[in-house]
Amino acid sequence: MPAPRFVDLTFPEVAELPEGTVAVLPLGAIEQHGPHLPVSTDYVTATSAAEAAVAEVAEAGAAPVVLLEGLAYTKSDEHHWAPGTIWLSWDTLMRTLVDIGRSLQTSGITRLVFVNGHGGNSALGQVTCRELRRQFGLATFFAHLSVPGDQVRDVSNPHELGLGIHGGHSETSLMLHLRPDLVKMDRAVRRVPEQLTAYEQIGFGKPVSFGWLSDDFGPDGHIGDPTTATADAGKVLFEAGVQRLAAAIVEASTFRVR
Amino acid sequence: MPAPRFVDLTFPEVAELPEGTVAVLPLGAIEQHGPHLPVSTDYVTATSAAEAAVAEVAEAGAAPVVLLEGLAYTKSDEHHWAPGTIWLSWDTLMRTLVDIGRSLQTSGITRLVFVNGHGGNSALGQVTCRELRRQFGLATFFAHLSVPGDQVRDVSNPHELGLGIHGGHSETSLMLHLRPDLVKMDRAVRRVPEQLTAYEQIGFGKPVSFGWLSDDFGPDGHIGDPTTATADAGKVLFEAGVQRLAAAIVEASTFRVR
Amino acid sequence: MPAPRFVDLTFPEVAELPEGTVAVLPLGAIEQHGPHLPVSTDYVTATSAAEAAVAEVAEAGAAPVVLLEGLAYTKSDEHHWAPGTIWLSWDTLMRTLVDIGRSLQTSGITRLVFVNGHGGNSALGQVTCRELRRQFGLATFFAHLSVPGDQVRDVSNPHELGLGIHGGHSETSLMLHLRPDLVKMDRAVRRVPEQLTAYEQIGFGKPVSFGWLSDDFGPDGHIGDPTTATADAGKVLFEAGVQRLAAAIVEASTFRVR
Amino acid sequence: MPAPRFVDLTFPEVAELPEGTVAVLPLGAIEQHGPHLPVSTDYVTATSAAEAAVAEVAEAGAAPVVLLEGLAYTKSDEHHWAPGTIWLSWDTLMRTLVDIGRSLQTSGITRLVFVNGHGGNSALGQVTCRELRRQFGLATFFAHLSVPGDQVRDVSNPHELGLGIHGGHSETSLMLHLRPDLVKMDRAVRRVPEQLTAYEQIGFGKPVSFGWLSDDFGPDGHIGDPTTATADAGKVLFEAGVQRLAAAIVEASTFRVR
Amino acid sequence: MPAPRFVDLTFPEVAELPEGTVAVLPLGAIEQHGPHLPVSTDYVTATSAAEAAVAEVAEAGAAPVVLLEGLAYTKSDEHHWAPGTIWLSWDTLMRTLVDIGRSLQTSGITRLVFVNGHGGNSALGQVTCRELRRQFGLATFFAHLSVPGDQVRDVSNPHELGLGIHGGHSETSLMLHLRPDLVKMDRAVRRVPEQLTAYEQIGFGKPVSFGWLSDDFGPDGHIGDPTTATADAGKVLFEAGVQRLAAAIVEASTFRVR
Amino acid sequence: MPAPRFVDLTFPEVAELPEGTVAVLPLGAIEQHGPHLPVSTDYVTATSAAEAAVAEVAEAGAAPVVLLEGLAYTKSDEHHWAPGTIWLSWDTLMRTLVDIGRSLQTSGITRLVFVNGHGGNSALGQVTCRELRRQFGLATFFAHLSVPGDQVRDVSNPHELGLGIHGGHSETSLMLHLRPDLVKMDRAVRRVPEQLTAYEQIGFGKPVSFGWLSDDFGPDGHIGDPTTATADAGKVLFEAGVQRLAAAIVEASTFRVR
Repeated sequence: MPAPRFVDLTFPEVAELPEGTVAVLPLGAIEQHGPHLPVSTDYVTATSAAEAAVAEVAEAGAAPVVLLEGLAYTKSDEHHWAPGTIWLSWDTLMRTLVDIGRSLQTSGITRLVFVNGHGGNSALGQVTCRELRRQFGLATFFAHLSVPGDQVRDVSNPHELGLGIHGGHSETSLMLHLRPDLVKMDRAVRRVPEQLTAYEQIGFGKPVSFGWLSDDFGPDGHIGDPTTATADAGKVLFEAGVQRLAAAIVEASTFRVR
Repeated sequence: MPAPRFVDLTFPEVAELPEGTVAVLPLGAIEQHGPHLPVSTDYVTATSAAEAAVAEVAEAGAAPVVLLEGLAYTKSDEHHWAPGTIWLSWDTLMRTLVDIGRSLQTSGITRLVFVNGHGGNSALGQVTCRELRRQFGLATFFAHLSVPGDQVRDVSNPHELGLGIHGGHSETSLMLHLRPDLVKMDRAVRRVPEQLTAYEQIGFGKPVSFGWLSDDFGPDGHIGDPTTATADAGKVLFEAGVQRLAAAIVEASTFRVR
Repeated sequence: MPAPRFVDLTFPEVAELPEGTVAVLPLGAIEQHGPHLPVSTDYVTATSAAEAAVAEVAEAGAAPVVLLEGLAYTKSDEHHWAPGTIWLSWDTLMRTLVDIGRSLQTSGITRLVFVNGHGGNSALGQVTCRELRRQFGLATFFAHLSVPGDQVRDVSNPHELGLGIHGGHSETSLMLHLRPDLVKMDRAVRRVPEQLTAYEQIGFGKPVSFGWLSDDFGPDGHIGDPTTATADAGKVLFEAGVQRLAAAIVEASTFRVR
Repeated sequence: MPAPRFVDLTFPEVAELPEGTVAVLPLGAIEQHGPHLPVSTDYVTATSAAEAAVAEVAEAGAAPVVLLEGLAYTKSDEHHWAPGTIWLSWDTLMRTLVDIGRSLQTSGITRLVFVNGHGGNSALGQVTCRELRRQFGLATFFAHLSVPGDQVRDVSNPHELGLGIHGGHSETSLMLHLRPDLVKMDRAVRRVPEQLTAYEQIGFGKPVSFGWLSDDFGPDGHIGDPTTATADAGKVLFEAGVQRLAAAIVEASTFRVR
Repeated sequence: MPAPRFVDLTFPEVAELPEGTVAVLPLGAIEQHGPHLPVSTDYVTATSAAEAAVAEVAEAGAAPVVLLEGLAYTKSDEHHWAPGTIWLSWDTLMRTLVDIGRSLQTSGITRLVFVNGHGGNSALGQVTCRELRRQFGLATFFAHLSVPGDQVRDVSNPHELGLGIHGGHSETSLMLHLRPDLVKMDRAVRRVPEQLTAYEQIGFGKPVSFGWLSDDFGPDGHIGDPTTATADAGKVLFEAGVQRLAAAIVEASTFRVR
Repeated sequence: MPAPRFVDLTFPEVAELPEGTVAVLPLGAIEQHGPHLPVSTDYVTATSAAEAAVAEVAEAGAAPVVLLEGLAYTKSDEHHWAPGTIWLSWDTLMRTLVDIGRSLQTSGITRLVFVNGHGGNSALGQVTCRELRRQFGLATFFAHLSVPGDQVRDVSNPHELGLGIHGGHSETSLMLHLRPDLVKMDRAVRRVPEQLTAYEQIGFGKPVSFGWLSDDFGPDGHIGDPTTATADAGKVLFEAGVQRLAAAIVEASTFRVR
């Protein structure tokens, strides 16, 4: 059973989707990712992972699932200063997601999984999940290809000191796996904010978060060390991420809290 | 010279786009299109036409141009009642387009052409064009694959009486050309609101417009006669539309009013 | 039967208006109209035409009709730079019209015709018509004294090359007919943006519209050739326009799409 | 020197208004006023008084002054339940007034007097006056034809017990003076909420105000005793009010706090 | 019977509050009050008075009453220029109060008394009272510790000429009574805008109000004469104010307009 | 050196706060916390902890710091159904925090630490921190008394299975330490959503979050096991939390990313 794409259906076909169908909405971003990665990086990773996970669930017949067209333009205000960033304000994105939730209710959808590729969307996504549940009764879930680097320490490249959260080892590896034609490894340079290690309370994945803009860290735009990235590492990260997303979609299809 | 896609560029590459580069933004819709067409119809036609027109301009080296990732979810409130319609309210779409215009300004873009596939976006698009010009100094242009049927009478299928504005002969032909796999011609039925011919002042393409919802016309959702649609007719319509769009993009690259 | 003015009625009289009564709302503008016309031009023409058309319908007993107090301040953002322009932003005007629609619903009004005198309101007016239909079930119609010059080419003065869209031959003639005391013909000069004729795709009444501000065309503010205007020409335009509006009101009183 | 009407001017004439010109903006309302008065009552009284006061100031050459087109539709939410009431929400009216203030700044106006005919606008008007001063540097003033009955006790008809705040003795008298053709004295009945006299702290013009809707008082809509109203009383009230407004305009033209 | 504090209750206890319980919400401000008073002045006076009045009503068993946690940050835009002022815009405060009203409805509260310590909140508070009544059916009341000086002339210190509206004799006396530790009498200077006495129509407590910012009056921020303030005067003012508030709460518990 | 309270200062004193002063803003909530805890629970814990941490920093002279008056009413939409919950919508709270940030900029404050007592504020708080940094240049930090239970598993009571996120062992212990007079231990019952342990991907502190309302879990409102709570455990939790907050404030006073 191939995974249906919502947009490929006629409206009567949407109306006939099985009860409990899980709709999956990729959230990307179009934003600067350093001099070596395309501005589509988060959009590519989110949509690729969501497609693969939905396909896996559908092929296995593990749960009724449908893939929504993803959002390319989201909340990238931390990169507002950079050419190539196209960002929605917090209230524009919030209104967009509420409008989508309202529309899904009319379509008979009751379960929605966000697959997010951009850490800057995570907080607003949490707010959205609750708002859609309250307003429209949707069961909502917020998933990432990987847990974002600004929430837990990323340990895959020790030279990053756990600070490779934007355009670093992981994202560059993922793009070398998914779209090597768009990666400029000759422009890749290490930009690790080592000063952050001096703080115990404040930092990425530490008890106290802070409000940062990417140009706080310098003019290059990325935060991490892309020089160690490889397509093989990207393949491992991608496939592990897809497995987890597929498992999450299956759980979401029957999730109950009591 | 292949047409660059904005999202494939790194941020320094965006910053180096030639002065006067025309950015092209497809506006689709995800909305019911009758029982025979997918809800993606307007999104497919807008993005296909924009891509083809941008490619033609770029290959001819006729003007500097860049293709933006299109918007799938737009203003489909006339189809709000239908499963499969995912619609943004007027203010959500307006805010989205203003946010995009603001971002393009940071990217150094000064000329923006909308390629619209959904008639329901036309009015708000006009409002947007002026707003973006006033707020950000953008030169803005609003183009359609074809002039929307609710603004001038469509004469390509006489059985439609000029009323084939949604899911009728033209759109169905276009989809038979572009995505025949998604068209269900066995579900295609004629739904022409013949009663409208009784009015001289009020109607599609008449002096007085009216505020309509698609379920005012009946439960099937489309307005027109898709039964006569063919892929050949779609090819003619598409190619003529692309030629016009390419010409418009070239004009937009040097357009001045004095 | 004189046409009742809504504002002259007591509230029980409003409640007793016949079912199907058509409410007519003039939309003017207070905005710069060149050095020769008052800033009230669009407000004068819209309210004069609406009054005359409503009177004609009422005297003929052709349909139940009531005239609403018009809006003087509307969406004149294209003239935002000029002294004398008092403009509402797109969202303020939209909210205003939605509030009026909501109120009319409480008054038992089910049919609403806008009589618009300002081209800059047309696009937002279309958005409003749909919004009022969806939210309040109002049958809504959007009419102009004349079809605005930026939508179809105006042919009444060949020296205008079809570009007399603001303060040109037509509007100046109308004002010479309606309020000659307010016209300064000694300040009237020809300001026709001849450069626009060089474009095939982009322009007033052409396939591709553009977002313009009136100072894009120069510091005088008007666009067209008022020097040929006469009160006689204005009388002809006005009376023809009123006839068409009256016919539209009658059609609106029984308009059905199926 | 006749008082110029802003809307009658061309835009260069607006630009040449003398420095310190006081702009006067009538605020009416279109709202139920009981079974005996037209819904235009507050609009008629506000615009009539503003016109007369402006004319008096201009004729005396006492201050540079210009009359703006008034607002008919304002904040009548207390009468939201009634046919005939056309009301703007608090934020729509606030946005409208801010937009007007912004536009006046572009027109070179630095002093603005509101002449308010509707008590329900008073509170929001205070908020507006400060907002326009802060945002645009306008010197702003809020005046009434008479001090509204819900702020100080009205003593002109003892049978009203000071409670004739809407459609009572004063307003009915004013309308008998200004527009006797629109008054239905045969429908005038006494509706005085005598119960209010039982409270010492809470009430109209008492230390503690309360949030009321007009249907809290009964289905007739008015609050007061119109049966004693006369055109003569209206004439006295009107002329005294106009004198006060004219004096206020003159003071506003040079008002300084230090 | 001690007055319950809303925040001290469990949610089942809130649900069991007697029908007709009057909720009391203090509205303070954190804003500059001249060089001699703390920025908390209005918050201290409002919360102190509300607490005392609620306690008195509860102890007397005169009415069911509950004290809500007050708002410290409110609408202090007239002091926007000053360090120490933390102000909400008009729409933020309005939305806050609407949200609180909505929440009280869920809590079963039907009567709400605002106790306001800041004159700058009075106008918006009136708007709120009506909005909450219309939207949620709440019986709403707006009370002050004292009637604000910009609404009626304050006569307690003749050297203030009735102009001691902010940080003058009254407020300084109140703070000397309530929080003498926070008053810097050595910084107290007389700042009375004597020029205002030259106007008959415009001014504090006069027929025409004006939109003022506190720095219109000078850089010191206060308006009045604090040099005569004493703790004894403050005690008298406070106790009289509390008596009136307690009486108002009792009236509010059974207030009916018919 | 006692920690200054912002609200106790005069405005000149605010202006003279040392450069780099850290402002600390407690974020509470007034919301149902089960049948055994007061609706003030999060407000009490946040303000108590912030006060203690600020006092410790100030007494040690470790950093310049000032305590702001906290917010009692915040984003408690997950408890919207319950009496006792007073909640702001996401946009009301966001606007409030933006307004506060804007005001602090005027006060010369450049560093702001939120001390949050309510998990439902965390996501919006992250959005706020970035918005305040972008709009006003504030260095912003978001801290919790404890890391919220819906983000990492709480392990202090094994019977809670890591699910004691609202009104469970920790919060009840804290309140037994801080305000034992407000705790009704006789109403404390165990409410642990054991079904959640069946999911690997979705859950509190798991890779995929979900949008929940507290009544999804049952009518009692709390989630966790308060029956094991003790004042001693609360003391340990509180003191450890305060130590961490004090350390975070000190770090915030000099925090730099490069």
